[in-house]
Amino acid sequence: MHPKMKELKERLTEVDDLNSATWLLSWDQQTYMPPGGAEARGRQMATLQHLAHEKFTDDRIGYLLDDLQREYADEPYASNEAALLRVTAREYAKATQVPPDFVVEASNHSSAIFSAWTTARPDNDFARLRPMLEKTLDLSKRYATYFPGHAEPIDPHIENSDYGMDAAIIGALFADLRAQLVPLVQAIAERPLADDSVLHQHYPEAAQIAFGEEVARTLGYDFKRGRQDKTYHPFATKFSINDVRITTRLDAEFLSAGLFGTIHETGHAMYEQGVDQALEATPLASGTSSGVHESQSRLWENLVGRSRNFWHHFYAPLQEQFPAQLGNVSMDTFYRAINKVEPSLIRVEADEVTYNLHVMLRFDLERALLNGQLAVADLPEAWNARMEADLGLVPPDDRDGVLQDVHWYAGFIGGAFQGYTLGNVMSAQFFAAAQQAHPTIRDQIRTGSFDTLRGWLTENIYTHGTKYSADEVIRNATGSPLSIAPYMAYLHGKYGELYGL
Amino acid sequence: MHPKMKELKERLTEVDDLNSATWLLSWDQQTYMPPGGAEARGRQMATLQHLAHEKFTDDRIGYLLDDLQREYADEPYASNEAALLRVTAREYAKATQVPPDFVVEASNHSSAIFSAWTTARPDNDFARLRPMLEKTLDLSKRYATYFPGHAEPIDPHIENSDYGMDAAIIGALFADLRAQLVPLVQAIAERPLADDSVLHQHYPEAAQIAFGEEVARTLGYDFKRGRQDKTYHPFATKFSINDVRITTRLDAEFLSAGLFGTIHETGHAMYEQGVDQALEATPLASGTSSGVHESQSRLWENLVGRSRNFWHHFYAPLQEQFPAQLGNVSMDTFYRAINKVEPSLIRVEADEVTYNLHVMLRFDLERALLNGQLAVADLPEAWNARMEADLGLVPPDDRDGVLQDVHWYAGFIGGAFQGYTLGNVMSAQFFAAAQQAHPTIRDQIRTGSFDTLRGWLTENIYTHGTKYSADEVIRNATGSPLSIAPYMAYLHGKYGELYGL
Repeated sequence: MHPKMKELKERLTEVDDLNSATWLLSWDQQTYMPPGGAEARGRQMATLQHLAHEKFTDDRIGYLLDDLQREYADEPYASNEAALLRVTAREYAKATQVPPDFVVEASNHSSAIFSAWTTARPDNDFARLRPMLEKTLDLSKRYATYFPGHAEPIDPHIENSDYGMDAAIIGALFADLRAQLVPLVQAIAERPLADDSVLHQHYPEAAQIAFGEEVARTLGYDFKRGRQDKTYHPFATKFSINDVRITTRLDAEFLSAGLFGTIHETGHAMYEQGVDQALEATPLASGTSSGVHESQSRLWENLVGRSRNFWHHFYAPLQEQFPAQLGNVSMDTFYRAINKVEPSLIRVEADEVTYNLHVMLRFDLERALLNGQLAVADLPEAWNARMEADLGLVPPDDRDGVLQDVHWYAGFIGGAFQGYTLGNVMSAQFFAAAQQAHPTIRDQIRTGSFDTLRGWLTENIYTHGTKYSADEVIRNATGSPLSIAPYMAYLHGKYGELYGL
Repeated sequence: MHPKMKELKERLTEVDDLNSATWLLSWDQQTYMPPGGAEARGRQMATLQHLAHEKFTDDRIGYLLDDLQREYADEPYASNEAALLRVTAREYAKATQVPPDFVVEASNHSSAIFSAWTTARPDNDFARLRPMLEKTLDLSKRYATYFPGHAEPIDPHIENSDYGMDAAIIGALFADLRAQLVPLVQAIAERPLADDSVLHQHYPEAAQIAFGEEVARTLGYDFKRGRQDKTYHPFATKFSINDVRITTRLDAEFLSAGLFGTIHETGHAMYEQGVDQALEATPLASGTSSGVHESQSRLWENLVGRSRNFWHHFYAPLQEQFPAQLGNVSMDTFYRAINKVEPSLIRVEADEVTYNLHVMLRFDLERALLNGQLAVADLPEAWNARMEADLGLVPPDDRDGVLQDVHWYAGFIGGAFQGYTLGNVMSAQFFAAAQQAHPTIRDQIRTGSFDTLRGWLTENIYTHGTKYSADEVIRNATGSPLSIAPYMAYLHGKYGELYGL
């Protein structure tokens, strides 16, 4: 190895070690930390983050990148070295283009508004947050100015989580999707509501955990390189390719929360566990974008986990785990219950069909705010109007409206939401391509075998880490650019049958 | 606050944050980390340790210390500022006197010999480790050369864990102690052996944990600022004054392991939880020496936890927790069982009376090795001869002899053991002083009340952190220098009665 490449990798490993340590501190904060630890923990995480930023933005890294990009100019695009230099140079440019003072100001504001939100939301008091949210908007616009050459101020924010995308691409895609989803939701709303009361029974926690872990293991999550713990907000987190953990939140009175939450996080975690070991401790060693990441959580949660084929295998074991609750419930009744569609106020509780309408609402409002077409003062009204237009519901208060998600109250406005719907769209495109490559996948799922599907996903997506952009991954894996067609075909097929459309 | 004092504290906080993060990584490694995480975790901990060392030995810290020691020259000795400068300057001098190359060489060797020991001990193969242990001895001697002016090469090693002590002081104390202990052990050995079979029954883990936590809580360990988890090797660890955790190892077939292990670690943890909050995130915010630390674990474990008064309160609840095992066992039988004295091969399993003979053996061998009076090649034989002289036992193999403790195979030779016995000696001196100050302590223990004792310990020991040296703490708290008299009086009183001597 070129000695400068060796030095670059050593420096990047140091940064990765600091980041991984920060993530462990955060995991512990959310799982086992006693309440007394909170104050010091916040400070410790800030210290490690600051050091990681300082180490990553060191001039020496810029010098090494410049020099090595010349040295490795003839390396093939797909080689680990070329990819490392390409992706690291991109991240380095981004990290060094923002003045350190701005980073501190934004981070301090973020802590302040988050803290205010934790009481303003229960108090249903948007007015109290308004001036702070205006500052968030101002900071979000100023952030965009450090990245000139973009068409819209939301674009640099999008690029941070979904590199290669911008508001024009996503806006067009979302407009198409919305035009097709709203009528579908309306058509379903005209049919009799599915009955999901079987899910709303008492399901003891220990049995839920046991079943969830059995499912995760069968799907292919490697517990020798991971584990599951309980948290208030479920998440997946990575400390190395060989230590990728998930957390779950159980609701003893509602089966879906823990069960599909576990499958969702298992999807995220299998992506991270599937990255090529050669990329360990480099910026290449994680999922490539929020959209592609979400495509994996949603593929496993919805396209696999809420399918008839999946329950063909797993329903009997579930009944065995919960004989009193499900012993006399037919699989068809259960299948209809877990796929109940009903317009609702809260994004994170929304079903598969209406979910994207919540996301697109947020994306469009972010874009309008950043473009100066919408004022923060008018945000609650705009939110409610759009809810009525798309879902036929008006939130009774801001608590379940504009205050419901933490995202705008813990970071920038812009870029935080689109990945959820991009992920849904991608999930169907990936799943269709996998089935085209291996037509036996459906039958295998019916028998509880997921190796072929996971193998295809690993080979086409997981192993590459961030080596390729989302767009490259999609084209390489499916032979086509991103398209909503497979997703709409999936929804129409599944829900057409379920609701007799 | 002087701006330079502010800067010094900020820099020390950064170091403390890195150290605390390292300790959390280590805690996780021993509690919840999946096996796959091991490789990256070792690297991550090394990175953080290296950064903490680099930050602490920064020239700027030396400059600030010099300057501030002049600025604060008139501050009273007992003030937080004077103590911070005094203790930090001492640590800084120590950390900067050792060349970085040596630190790396010693650390690499340490990893190598530790790894070799993990297989050589089960293989009973001292010969395989001998050349590496010779290198350890060489490194330990070289380390001492960086601290000229000491009488013996073991002294700088002792100073690292028991500041203020040296081989001459400890050697004299230990010689006295040994001269009194050996006859006591022999006298006890001539009496009928106590029967501890009641402890060797099946004690279900969950009930052991529940009882252990109840005891820890009653003694005064604050679970809002701590928690208990299971590990292979029990320990206490601190991430801040308000997050001090303990771990325990349970043996379902032997009650004492988990029960007294929990009380022992609770003692360490209450010391750390009791440090003055004003010292948080500075080098003053922990126990002052390995001896004083051990005095607290042993005071709570032995002088409190193995006393008749303690069980006067706790035996009924223990019987309630384990009715099948202890329902028909008298408290006297139980009390004799937990205080059984019997010479044995393994230090960590030794009873209160014979334990110190194991420690002094190691201390004397370390001292002889470092002084060139003993060769590594002759170490097993010297070990066995001393075992026979002091305990009347010869290890059947090196596995249960010279290979048993990890200390010499994971760091320097020198300074690792004396704290255990210093702690035992101090524990009795502190306990006697506390009782002299508050004669009601004994009666309170009989009723399960520990506030007066813990209050005295907090006021005289815990709150000061490392502000005072062990010697200062002992003189301030007890009015006398360290003495073996209270300890021998305690042993003679307790075991004289138990064994009818």
